[in-house]
Order: sequence, then C-alpha cells, then structure tokens
Amino acid sequence: MSLSLPHIGALPAGTRNSITDVAGVTVGHATLAGGAIQTGVTVVRPHAGDPFLDKVPAASVVLNGFGKSIGLVQVEELGVLETPIALSNTFAVGAMAQAQIRQAVAANPQIGRAWSTVNPLVFECNDGYLNDLQAFAVQDVHYDAAYAAAAETFEQGAVGAGRGMSSFGVKGGIGSASRVVTLADGTQRTVGVLVLSNFGVTENLTLAGRNVGAELAKALAAGRPAPTPEPEKGSIIMLLATDAPLDARQLRRLALRAGAGLARTGSVFGHGSGDIALAFSTAYTVPHEGARAMPAVAMTHESHLDPLFQAAADSVEQAIVHALFRAAAVTGRDGNTRRALTELI
Amino acid sequence: MSLSLPHIGALPAGTRNSITDVAGVTVGHATLAGGAIQTGVTVVRPHAGDPFLDKVPAASVVLNGFGKSIGLVQVEELGVLETPIALSNTFAVGAMAQAQIRQAVAANPQIGRAWSTVNPLVFECNDGYLNDLQAFAVQDVHYDAAYAAAAETFEQGAVGAGRGMSSFGVKGGIGSASRVVTLADGTQRTVGVLVLSNFGVTENLTLAGRNVGAELAKALAAGRPAPTPEPEKGSIIMLLATDAPLDARQLRRLALRAGAGLARTGSVFGHGSGDIALAFSTAYTVPHEGARAMPAVAMTHESHLDPLFQAAADSVEQAIVHALFRAAAVTGRDGNTRRALTELI
Amino acid sequence: MSLSLPHIGALPAGTRNSITDVAGVTVGHATLAGGAIQTGVTVVRPHAGDPFLDKVPAASVVLNGFGKSIGLVQVEELGVLETPIALSNTFAVGAMAQAQIRQAVAANPQIGRAWSTVNPLVFECNDGYLNDLQAFAVQDVHYDAAYAAAAETFEQGAVGAGRGMSSFGVKGGIGSASRVVTLADGTQRTVGVLVLSNFGVTENLTLAGRNVGAELAKALAAGRPAPTPEPEKGSIIMLLATDAPLDARQLRRLALRAGAGLARTGSVFGHGSGDIALAFSTAYTVPHEGARAMPAVAMTHESHLDPLFQAAADSVEQAIVHALFRAAAVTGRDGNTRRALTELI
Amino acid sequence: MSLSLPHIGALPAGTRNSITDVAGVTVGHATLAGGAIQTGVTVVRPHAGDPFLDKVPAASVVLNGFGKSIGLVQVEELGVLETPIALSNTFAVGAMAQAQIRQAVAANPQIGRAWSTVNPLVFECNDGYLNDLQAFAVQDVHYDAAYAAAAETFEQGAVGAGRGMSSFGVKGGIGSASRVVTLADGTQRTVGVLVLSNFGVTENLTLAGRNVGAELAKALAAGRPAPTPEPEKGSIIMLLATDAPLDARQLRRLALRAGAGLARTGSVFGHGSGDIALAFSTAYTVPHEGARAMPAVAMTHESHLDPLFQAAADSVEQAIVHALFRAAAVTGRDGNTRRALTELI
Repeated sequence: MSLSLPHIGALPAGTRNSITDVAGVTVGHATLAGGAIQTGVTVVRPHAGDPFLDKVPAASVVLNGFGKSIGLVQVEELGVLETPIALSNTFAVGAMAQAQIRQAVAANPQIGRAWSTVNPLVFECNDGYLNDLQAFAVQDVHYDAAYAAAAETFEQGAVGAGRGMSSFGVKGGIGSASRVVTLADGTQRTVGVLVLSNFGVTENLTLAGRNVGAELAKALAAGRPAPTPEPEKGSIIMLLATDAPLDARQLRRLALRAGAGLARTGSVFGHGSGDIALAFSTAYTVPHEGARAMPAVAMTHESHLDPLFQAAADSVEQAIVHALFRAAAVTGRDGNTRRALTELI
Repeated sequence: MSLSLPHIGALPAGTRNSITDVAGVTVGHATLAGGAIQTGVTVVRPHAGDPFLDKVPAASVVLNGFGKSIGLVQVEELGVLETPIALSNTFAVGAMAQAQIRQAVAANPQIGRAWSTVNPLVFECNDGYLNDLQAFAVQDVHYDAAYAAAAETFEQGAVGAGRGMSSFGVKGGIGSASRVVTLADGTQRTVGVLVLSNFGVTENLTLAGRNVGAELAKALAAGRPAPTPEPEKGSIIMLLATDAPLDARQLRRLALRAGAGLARTGSVFGHGSGDIALAFSTAYTVPHEGARAMPAVAMTHESHLDPLFQAAADSVEQAIVHALFRAAAVTGRDGNTRRALTELI
Repeated sequence: MSLSLPHIGALPAGTRNSITDVAGVTVGHATLAGGAIQTGVTVVRPHAGDPFLDKVPAASVVLNGFGKSIGLVQVEELGVLETPIALSNTFAVGAMAQAQIRQAVAANPQIGRAWSTVNPLVFECNDGYLNDLQAFAVQDVHYDAAYAAAAETFEQGAVGAGRGMSSFGVKGGIGSASRVVTLADGTQRTVGVLVLSNFGVTENLTLAGRNVGAELAKALAAGRPAPTPEPEKGSIIMLLATDAPLDARQLRRLALRAGAGLARTGSVFGHGSGDIALAFSTAYTVPHEGARAMPAVAMTHESHLDPLFQAAADSVEQAIVHALFRAAAVTGRDGNTRRALTELI
Repeated sequence: MSLSLPHIGALPAGTRNSITDVAGVTVGHATLAGGAIQTGVTVVRPHAGDPFLDKVPAASVVLNGFGKSIGLVQVEELGVLETPIALSNTFAVGAMAQAQIRQAVAANPQIGRAWSTVNPLVFECNDGYLNDLQAFAVQDVHYDAAYAAAAETFEQGAVGAGRGMSSFGVKGGIGSASRVVTLADGTQRTVGVLVLSNFGVTENLTLAGRNVGAELAKALAAGRPAPTPEPEKGSIIMLLATDAPLDARQLRRLALRAGAGLARTGSVFGHGSGDIALAFSTAYTVPHEGARAMPAVAMTHESHLDPLFQAAADSVEQAIVHALFRAAAVTGRDGNTRRALTELI
C-alpha cells in the first residue's frame, strides 16, 4: 500500500488549509512529552480580543456523549462562548476550567463579584494508552502557555492536546483544514476546522473513500506479537469556525455536518467515543454589557447554507486525514507505542 | 463505468437482506402509477398484532428537520409507537394520519372516547418532480391497501411511497437491507432497515466508497439538452428495526447511526432535506392498559452496542444502494423523467 | 366561595389584554356546535401578509409530549413558521394540515412543484368528552372560515377550537391575555398569549395562588350523582407572541416560561397531557426567497429578557384564567356536560 | 406578617421529609465558614456501594442553562450516573471533578488505564455575594469530608454547598423534602428531593400560593439604607430520588416536574439562573462490567406516573420552603449579609 495525503472533496482549501484561514482565529499548544507523560493542551482563540467582553456566537452538537467536557450547557442556552476553547486529556478538564476562570478573573475582576461569572469551555479525549492520566500532569500553567502561544501558524499531529491521542490504532492527535465556498448571494466564505482525533477501529479506516483499514490492521499486526483488538473508546472533538454570519441555530446545523465528514473516515460514532462538534462564527460578536448596542447582523439566508455544510463535512474529513498523516510515532506509559500511519502504508 | 451492486461492509446480511429479517416485521405497498400521478404508500408493521394494545419501543433522530412528519413529539415523550408506520408523499400526511386514526378506532372503539387517543406516525418525502402533488391523489384507501398487503416479502425501488422519489438525480424510492451480528454476550441479533430514498446531489453519489457522482452527472447530461443543477431538496426516511432488547434511549442511539450510513453515500444532510431516522425494537412490547403487567426485560448492556451501531450504519448504506439499483425509470408529471441508475452506469 | 376574575401579577396588561395587543396579530374562530358535535377551529395569523413569503421567527417547547401536533420538526430546524397557526381537536390535525397546504398552494402555485413545499402547523387538544371525535366533523372549510374571520377582536371561552374543551373538570377553551414591559434598554415591549385550555385535575385548580380546587370539587360533586375522578388527559396549547426582536433560540427561552405560568394554575404537566408552547416574534420577518435581502436586526440583549420572561409566565396564567372565567357551559355527546366555573364558585 | 412553615400540597411526607426517605440515599456536608469564606460542599450518595461499579439510572433537565455543571453530557447519553453527586460553588467545579476522579481511581485503579474513564458529576450555584469566590477555597479534601459525612440525617439551610447561597434576597441554601404516593398498581413509592437554593427575586416570593414577596421586600428595605434591586442571577439545583423503577426516559419526565414546584415559589426561570434538575432511581442498578448480567426490571407503567409527578413538584416546592425556613443569617465577604427569612416574616 502506498498512499499520499489525499485532498478531500471538490472544494478548494484556504491559504493554510487550516482553521486559521478564518480570519482572527489562532491556535496554540503546550506539549508535555517525557517518559510516561505524553499529553498537553491546545487552545483555540476565536478572536484577538477578550471573548468575555465580546462573546462569540456558537453552538454544539453531541453525536455521542461518552465524554466529560464542561461548558456546553451554557453554550446551548445562550448561544455564545465567552472563553477561548481548551482541549486536553480527560483528567485535565477540572484544571483547565480553573485556568480559564483565573484568566477571565484576571482580565475582568468583577467576575466572581456582583453576580458575575464566566463559563469555562473545555473538551477532552482519553490519552491514557500513551499518557499516565493518573499523574494529573496538566496544570494551569500549561493552559497559560498554550494560550500565549496562539498564532496563525501551528503544528499538527502529536502536539498539544494531541500528544497522546490515537486513531484507528495508530498515532492521532491535532489536525486542521479549511474550505472556501461561494454562496448563492455571491459572498465568499471560509469554514475552518480543528480536530482532536482519538477515535477509530483500525479495520474501519477509510481514506478518501478507500477502506485501508484491513491493510493497516495487517501492517500493525506484523509489527507486534499479539495484536489486541481494541474497542472504540476514543473520542473526537471537532471545532468549526466560519466567517459566515450565522446565528446559534444555524451554527448548530453547521456543527451537525461534522458528523458526515467523520462518518466518511469509518466512524459509526462508537459507543465509547465522545464525538462532539462545536461551531462558532467570527462574523460578529455579542457584547457582555447590556448597555452596549447589540449588533444588527443580516444572517445568511437558510437556502444558501448548503455550500457551508459541504465545506464543514469536507474540512472535518480533511482535518482527520491531516491528523493521521502528520502525527509522528510516540512511545509513552509502560512503553506503549503508537506508530505513525505514514510508517505503515 | 460498470458497477455491480456492492455488498456494504464486512457484516453478513440476513436471509432476505431486508427489514423483514427482523422477525415479525412486515411491509406492504400501495402504488399509484398513471400519467401525472406517480406516488403511493408504504406501511411497515412492527409486529402481527395491534400496536395500540401492544406498543413498540421506539425513538427517532432528526438529522435535518426540513420535513413534515407527524407523530414524533409523542414518540419522543413516551418512547413507543402505537400504529404501523406510514410513508407517503409530502401532501399525503394528513390523509395518512386520518387513515391511521380510523383504523385504530375501528379496532379499539374507545379511542376518541373516555380520553383515549391514538398517535398517528407518518413520514413523507417530496415526490413533486414526478408526481402531481397538488392532485392530493393519496387517500385513506391506499393506506388500507398497503396495510393489507404487508408481508415478509415486498418489492423495492419505484413502488409504494417510493414510486415518485428521486435520489442523486436518478430514480430512487424504497430500499431495504439487514445485517446480523453477534454481541459480546453471545447473542445473535439482527438490524433491518427500510429507507424511502429521495435525497442526494448527483455529483456526490458514492457507492461503497467510490465517488461515481461525477461520471453519473456526465451520463445524465448526455441524455438531456440542458441539465439543470438541482438543490438538495429531497429527504430520506430511515426506519431501523432490531430484535435486540433496547430501551428508547438506546434506540435513539441506534437511530443516530443511520446518519453514518447516509453520509457514506454522499449526503451532508442538505439544508432542504428532511433526514429522519426512527428505530424500534421487536424484543418486547409495552401494554396499553396499565392493569396489564409490564415486561421485565434485561436490556442490552451498553458496552455491547457497537456491533449494532455498525449494523445500523451498514444496513442504511446498503438499503440506499438497493433503492438505487432496484428502481426502474419513471416518467410522470409534465413528462418529467427519472432514469434508472442501472441504465446509466 | 365567591371569586372575581383576578389580575395575575404586577405587570400591566395591554389595551385588549389579549394576544392581539401585539400589533399585526389576529385571531379567528369557526365553531361547530350542535348536538354531539361540539368542536371547532381557531386560527392565529402572525401578520397580515403571507407567512410563506415572509416567514415569522418562532420556536417551541414541548413540556409534555402526549400530543399529536404537526409542524414542530421543521419549526425547530429552521426557526420560522410559514403558515398561520391552526388549533383544533385531536382527530382534525390531518384535515387542518391539508387545508393549510391548499391555502398555501392557492397563493403560491409553485408549492408542490420545483421542490417547493410548505410546512403546516397544527396543534390539537382532545375534546372527546363533549364532542363526537369519531365523526371527524372538522373539515377544510372550517379552517378557511376561521382564517377569514381573523381580527383583532375575538371571543374567548367555548368558541372555535375551544368549543369542546374542558379544564379542571369545568368548561375550558380559548383564553387570551397580554402584558406590557419596559426593558433595560428603554424599549416598551408586549407579550401576548392565546391558550387552548383543556387540562387540569379539579382538586389542583389554583387561581392567583389560591387553591380553589377542593371547593370546586365539592361544588361539582353536589351537581352530579356519582362524580368520576378523571385522570389528567387533557392538553394545553400556549401560543406566545411578542414584538421584541428575538431570534429562534431566544424565542425558545420565552416559550419555556409558559411552563411557569401553567404550573401556577395547578398543573404538574400530567402524563396524559400534551403541554406545548410556541413563541413567535413580529419584530421582523425572514424572506422565503434567497434572492431577497435578509433583515439586519439587532436582537434583544440577553440580559434584558427577564421582564419578557415574567410577562410570558403572567400572560399564560392570565390567559388560562380568562378561558375558565369566559367559558359558558356546554352539553354535547351523549348528554355529557361541562359546567361553567362561574356557575360554581 | 407571621408565617409558620407550610406543608405543601395534599400528599404525605416520608418519615424524615427528606431525600433520605428514599432508602439507601445519604447526604453529607463540608462547610467552610470563616470571614470572607462562606461556602462548602454537599455530596449525595445514591446508594451505599460504589456507583462506578453499580451505576444508577438517571436523567436531567436544564430549565435554564446559565450554569457551569459538569457531567450532564454523559448522563444524557448513557442514562446513568457513576459517581456521587457533588454540589458546590461556581468556581469549585474543577476541584470537585478532580476529587471525584481521584476517588474513583482509588477504588478502581483501572480507571485512566485500558480506556476506562469516569464521569464526574458536579453542580454549582454562585455564592459570590457572601463568599470570596476568587479565593478558590474549596478543595479536594472538602469533597472527601462531605463524602465521609454522608448519612441519613443531615442539616439543612446554611450548610455545605448552601453555606453562602441566597434566595429571594434572604438566606437560602440546602433544603430537602419527600412525598409518599400509592400508584395505581398498588405499590407505595417515595420521591425525595434535595435542593441547593440560590435563586429568586424578592418581590416574587410565594409561600404555599401566598405572595409574601412584597412584604418581604418592605421588611428587607427597613433593615438597610439603600436596598439595591438585584437581577435574577442565582440558580437552583434540584436533585430528585425515587424508589420507583423508572428508566432514563421516565426519569427525565420526572425531573421536568421539578419546574412546576419551582414555578410555584415565584420563579420564572430567570435569564441569569442555572435551573437544573436531575432525577435518579434507586430501584435497580446497571453493572459497569458487560460480563455481569443486566437487571430484568419491570418499569413503572406510564399511566401510573402522575402521582410521582405530583410528588416531584410538591417535594421541590417543599424543599425550597425548607431551605428558606432553616437557613440562619450569614455575614461574609466585605461584610455582606443575608438575613434569615424567619427573622423578617
């Protein structure tokens, strides 16, 4: 088998083929890689300002809720996010939430006073195969470091929150992609995606429609004495950004299309997987203070959404492909190893 | 291009490769095919008895709610269905609901008296390209005929509710399939699916992972002077039956996996499409009368669901493939024609 | 016991204390009252135009889904309604849906052609105690008549869809109310409500906080030889209109507050009751045609919603009170009678 | 004004009139009360065993999602809880989640290995008026202490997580109540409730149907120079336990009825309030290990649920009343004081 990295679908990618093709979005990592600690934090900032003061329209879809994220209850109710988005491992959600609260309080000291609070937003996948989860290695400082590192260019693969993640029995992690579309109203819009990819049964791996899982399973089996079939216990977090003006209801529709891209890689949204998508728009913000004027935004007409839906599905599939092709092999806890897809096919 | 009908996935099909591989389930059609009237009714009976007296555990998932079904509010609240399931065209929902009520009242004269009511359950797709919807041709008698015709063997393709439906620019309609799995607890279970397939943009058609849409678009264009690109305005109804003991929450999980199978055929759950899945279990029934004893059922352990999820996704994809391969060409309203996929590839 | 009609809460009512205090909203009835037929239709028009061409932002909340409405799947997905709202009895939903389709087609002949469809929106309660449901007396013409009668002034009580409805063991039916509030941004807004009230266990009836159900039960018992306790098998439909600019997500929040007003009358959202709220805004419309410009609307700031929430709850409670105080006694099927609350207390 | 503690509704309470009337349920507190730190932790244990190994059927309803809980995504998907339930302040969610993970790992060392994880379940309200939230005073040890203290008898009012909470402008906190009902199938069932009460606008306070808010506002105003009207920025967490055999779908129905009890105290589910209900059943457990047999449980017939719904609403209202009547005055951060309701009326 010899596969080159495929381009998914017929739509063109943005300049970077990354979530940061949506103007204003930046991404930073903090990576912990030493011995049994193979984990980290990835932070996505939706804009350069303070999202607590200028909230970002957002909505999420839970395709399969075997997951421990924090923040979705309020996102669903209010249709905005008000912190950067943090990704990390399953046992780090508490620490990340506290780091987000501390950061918000530092910038806005009234939070925690006068009835004001802030809603942390943290997603996780389980990297316990490579990483010693029980060490609780991820701390506040790693959130701060990832936040400080946020930029338009960023690494993909076995970095940040993706450091210890696996997909389809090989190394997974962070992947990103984008697609550019022209709507019926003549506007050009971008959808950018970042995934934390930690899901997938080897036999199901499908790349650009071609099932390569059976071959991959053979290649993996060749490298180890007694391959243990593993249940689907992974998870994937799919973050979608767009510069199209969409309200929360429309963003929920967009987020659902992540499931189409995910399915095309071979997922059936396995029981043990936390498959969650969150979409946000950078086209406008909502002021925290009621005294400030609300934006008067003409949303995208519903009948113009199909190209955005296609872009969402294609970008998610492409981002997963990127995670698989860009993740280097990692050896971690107890000598456990995940090989790189590119070593094997 | 030369395609034979592919077998989707690695799981074996049941004896008939149809929803009626789930014991007790039967399907019947009434087809109206004459001139501008190209439409019909398909009825799925979950068991041979009266589902009002012995209700069937069920749950639904709306992947995209551009649809006019009736009955889902109560299914979601109570977790059961209490009529056969009716499929027809968009303008026939009212007539089908009334037919279901009349049938239930005939069998149970207390309905409509003494506070007792019955919940009709009707799904629809828009066959207005081939069928003269405005004629309101489908009537009570057609429901009754489809019900009376219900059997373990039934036609697929351009029959019943599928008579006027289109998919990917060619003829669609009724398709069915099944998969048999062995769970970790050693039990053998069947998932059967019936779809009413009326969705899909030609260019996206994907058969067993292979994108054949571009070629199909060329073949279609060759046959007509000025091909008009069509928006995704279709819909697909996906009915899933299983003999695994699942409660309503688990059936909702199963129904969601229909989306994975659907996505693999090239759908991104288009804006104008009503993409709805409903799953039911035949493993037990719930008595209408509170005086009767409730069944004491050991549900399937959550960790054993993955094979059922795989079967659901594969069966849905297979059922769509069956609809496409089995639907003959139809000419209807205003001479509009949908050609058969098998004529073209 | 001697009760005068109470004013609920501290907020002032609008001029008419009715849903038509929200400018543009009109209401019409068709009442069928003769012998065993005691039923009807009520139509609420959100504005004077064609809601198919100028759709109305809307959202619904199902507090208890023992109900057979049609149209909510699409309202939830798209956040708009595109027909007038029809209320009738449980067995009339099909006929009303067909009447709405016919009306929409008459005004927009492309519906049913060229992929265009329309989403009927019909709610129901069960009036089978007073009305011979099995006669299917309500027909298309009654929808048309109710639509034609729509006006700013309209009757309440045992009229239209309310003709055969009961609440708390006495006569119920149509009630309406409104409240006017000033938001923190200085704007004055109105919330108007119309209910179809057909719920309630006698013993629970609570008027302005005072439980009068026990006394009412005694009064009812005095008037009949063997009072039969009745289960909660009613339903209430609660329609909320507002001139505040709210999007679909915010309208869902508003609709939920109907539950607070309902609870204060003594409801615990009984198992057999279809308790559904739908809220819409008249502040803007959404064009059907994608070629028309979308409105650029500054929505109400989230922190300004509390007065609207209070108005929603108070208006719903008031509307139920109005239905109870304004409904005259009715005798119908099999000589069944519902007495008027005002005869009894 | 002179009010004695009212009994809500017509149903009898259990022996303790507390959530621990549901056999097996225990409650413990850890209270931090010193100077500016006025906060704490309350833990509810659903049974005496390890809920990770023997999971508890559960479901939640978010009436208003202005809240920062963790764990609901997985509860909704899987229909079970697998840790004790922790209540604390808004900034302590992260610490409580980590404490729950550590506790689960200590008992089950495979968690964090071999794909196994645990779902923390933490609810919060904002006690920032009395408590210095920014001090992050609540730590792991307080969770452990509350857990260790869990017993059938426990204090109510300004204790545990309720230490710093306020309701209706006076001191709120922990309240509990229960109701005992006989179902139509002859079984006697108990519903027990524990609330963390931190919501309510003074003017709206309603006790057993009587609006006492206006009088309370006067009494409060008399005690301070310039009373500041406060927005609804509170929250209430409502935990419902029952020994009736209900599945997750039915438990969600039960949880929703908490809203009826809440509304009767004067809440309209204010914008800034996190109003969340969670219901669980003690009638059976679900094994963690797929190799263990699933329980074969006859669930409660749907038509028998109404008494449980009434019990849920009445218990919630009673528990809020208990919180208000049992909470002593507290002075905390910056000398802020909440007086006791019983001092004022």
